[in-house]
Amino acid sequence: MESIGIVAPHRMHFPEPLALRSGASLAGYDLMVETYGTLNAARSNAVLVCHALNASHHVAGVYADEPKNVGWWDNMVGPGKPLDTNRFFVIGVNNLGSCFGSTGPMSLDPATGKPYGARFPVVTVEDWVNAQARVADAFGIERFAAVMGGSLGGMQALAWSLMYPDRVGHCIVIASTPKLSAQNIAFNEVARSAILSDPDFHGGDYYAHGVKPRRGLRVARMIGHITYLSDDDMATKFGRALRRPSGGADDYHFSFDVEFEVESYLRYQGDKFADYFDANTYLLITRALDYFDPAKAFDGDLTAAVAHTRAQYLVASFTTDWRFAPTRSRELVKALLDHKRRVTYAEIDAPHGHDAFLLDDARYHNVLRAYYERIAEEVRA
Amino acid sequence: MESIGIVAPHRMHFPEPLALRSGASLAGYDLMVETYGTLNAARSNAVLVCHALNASHHVAGVYADEPKNVGWWDNMVGPGKPLDTNRFFVIGVNNLGSCFGSTGPMSLDPATGKPYGARFPVVTVEDWVNAQARVADAFGIERFAAVMGGSLGGMQALAWSLMYPDRVGHCIVIASTPKLSAQNIAFNEVARSAILSDPDFHGGDYYAHGVKPRRGLRVARMIGHITYLSDDDMATKFGRALRRPSGGADDYHFSFDVEFEVESYLRYQGDKFADYFDANTYLLITRALDYFDPAKAFDGDLTAAVAHTRAQYLVASFTTDWRFAPTRSRELVKALLDHKRRVTYAEIDAPHGHDAFLLDDARYHNVLRAYYERIAEEVRA
Repeated sequence: MESIGIVAPHRMHFPEPLALRSGASLAGYDLMVETYGTLNAARSNAVLVCHALNASHHVAGVYADEPKNVGWWDNMVGPGKPLDTNRFFVIGVNNLGSCFGSTGPMSLDPATGKPYGARFPVVTVEDWVNAQARVADAFGIERFAAVMGGSLGGMQALAWSLMYPDRVGHCIVIASTPKLSAQNIAFNEVARSAILSDPDFHGGDYYAHGVKPRRGLRVARMIGHITYLSDDDMATKFGRALRRPSGGADDYHFSFDVEFEVESYLRYQGDKFADYFDANTYLLITRALDYFDPAKAFDGDLTAAVAHTRAQYLVASFTTDWRFAPTRSRELVKALLDHKRRVTYAEIDAPHGHDAFLLDDARYHNVLRAYYERIAEEVRA
Repeated sequence: MESIGIVAPHRMHFPEPLALRSGASLAGYDLMVETYGTLNAARSNAVLVCHALNASHHVAGVYADEPKNVGWWDNMVGPGKPLDTNRFFVIGVNNLGSCFGSTGPMSLDPATGKPYGARFPVVTVEDWVNAQARVADAFGIERFAAVMGGSLGGMQALAWSLMYPDRVGHCIVIASTPKLSAQNIAFNEVARSAILSDPDFHGGDYYAHGVKPRRGLRVARMIGHITYLSDDDMATKFGRALRRPSGGADDYHFSFDVEFEVESYLRYQGDKFADYFDANTYLLITRALDYFDPAKAFDGDLTAAVAHTRAQYLVASFTTDWRFAPTRSRELVKALLDHKRRVTYAEIDAPHGHDAFLLDDARYHNVLRAYYERIAEEVRA
């Protein structure tokens, strides 16, 4: 299967203030956007792909000057791929508060001329959806053929179908949940604590000090990584394999340096993340996860919360995902079925835990491919 | 059920060097010990209780000057309790390297006159068992009626039955595992990384700097705590309850301060732990967990590893324990049954995750009570 090839990001500027759920407001903002495929004359073939924690607008393809920087969902989006760019016009948007070019804590606050830092307002899934709606407006897209996302991206897709019921044909929610559990929040809180307590955090204004809270980011990413993989997958990938057996009778080194392969892997992931990710963004995005809970305004009644949806749904989960387990997807499916919504639910037997939604698994991709065939027929009709 | 009442710890000094599994050796050492009940004339009613990560020799009762400092397994050990001190002579030992009075990183290294700090040798479960064997020798106990422990304590009980097969009548292994999984090691590694990267750690010699790596310890404990509780238990205890609803329409505060009850709980546990626990000890004990793997010398064949055991076994696990899940106990049971050992296995349906082994659950305690009745009859015979 060919990749979509060379792509280029665009910066879109939105001069109007954006009222946020918190009550704060963001004066004009920029969003980084990438598009793939061609918008048809009826503007009926557009698909919005929403990203999760550390991803961006760069969904597919590579950049001319960065041939190794492959989009994060390149196996899903492209010519002949499940989301076929020969048929659909696909939009990737980097969310507000992220650190890949959209307005966020590293951006200059027009009020002070300095980076927002800790003064960047807390943003929510709903705020992202409102910001994305303006992207749709700018493209003249009244209604998306589909809004799709995995994990936190799936929350955005779900929120789209709740907030803009007339603007979403199909809502595709993968490896996601209608709300975080106490345990999910707990993991986020530990990650945030590691960042907030890093002496290099400087209350969020580390840019001015020429440092970044690398130690905290590193620990935060290591914690996250454990929750993305399944126990079985870790056992298969690493088991108890040693990094450099000592050669002694007992072949341990009896130290706190890297001993097991899994330690080496986690440290590598942590270091890499600390290089490229922004700590304030990590705080913001984990908080957006915590806060997402569309049933909250309905006393926790998810069925009531989805009463006014009009989309059709594809909900998919993975058997070994313990971060957002299949039971969480089934809650959503049940609430939708309470209203006799058209829902396709796929529970995919895959060993790779939460990360499965990013991987090229034939059973998973076939479900998506078949579902997009159906959408393509509707778009043609 | 009455508590055993006022108890007192004893310091035992062992002047002989202890050869450690790492190849290092510890010149004479001290162990803190508590005993409950009376050793019979035949010295046949002794039970050794081994502690897990953050516990100590203070298994039951209270101290005269600290009436609120109740032993960590007071619901299990005492007159009329499942491990009945009217019948058994119970010994609790604080392990080498721990921070409750036994020789450890905070102790003065006789070679330098300064605290060991980072120079305290890495100790293993097997080293602890060897050190405990000298305690038994000092009491003139040739054979324990039982050696018992939960979690890391269960590893010590298992190691006793492997290393000293003639000295263990019954081996009681609760909520434990014959080895850590990659995921278990991963959680330990993140906790250690938080400590090792805390600027106040000073390479383990923070005592000399008059500080302690509180931030790292705090994050380490928070991570640990998540793994001790079940997802369900956290949902029941905390759910998504807010600490101080803002009173606004949306009642979030939209900040990174404590918002959810579960965050408040974790921060409290983390702070408390940072007050009383030593960071070097945390490193040592998590490493002892990582290294425990009696099947390692047998190419991973646990059945081969337990070939020479002579004890009878009670193995107990808890359905919602995802740290050391029931499957891990069943591995051990299977290996023992391969040799037709007498094994009682109890898989207890309890909602409280790994921490269940410390709680007063009737079904769990009844299993232990019945098992100790049987041991008591053997001791009388």
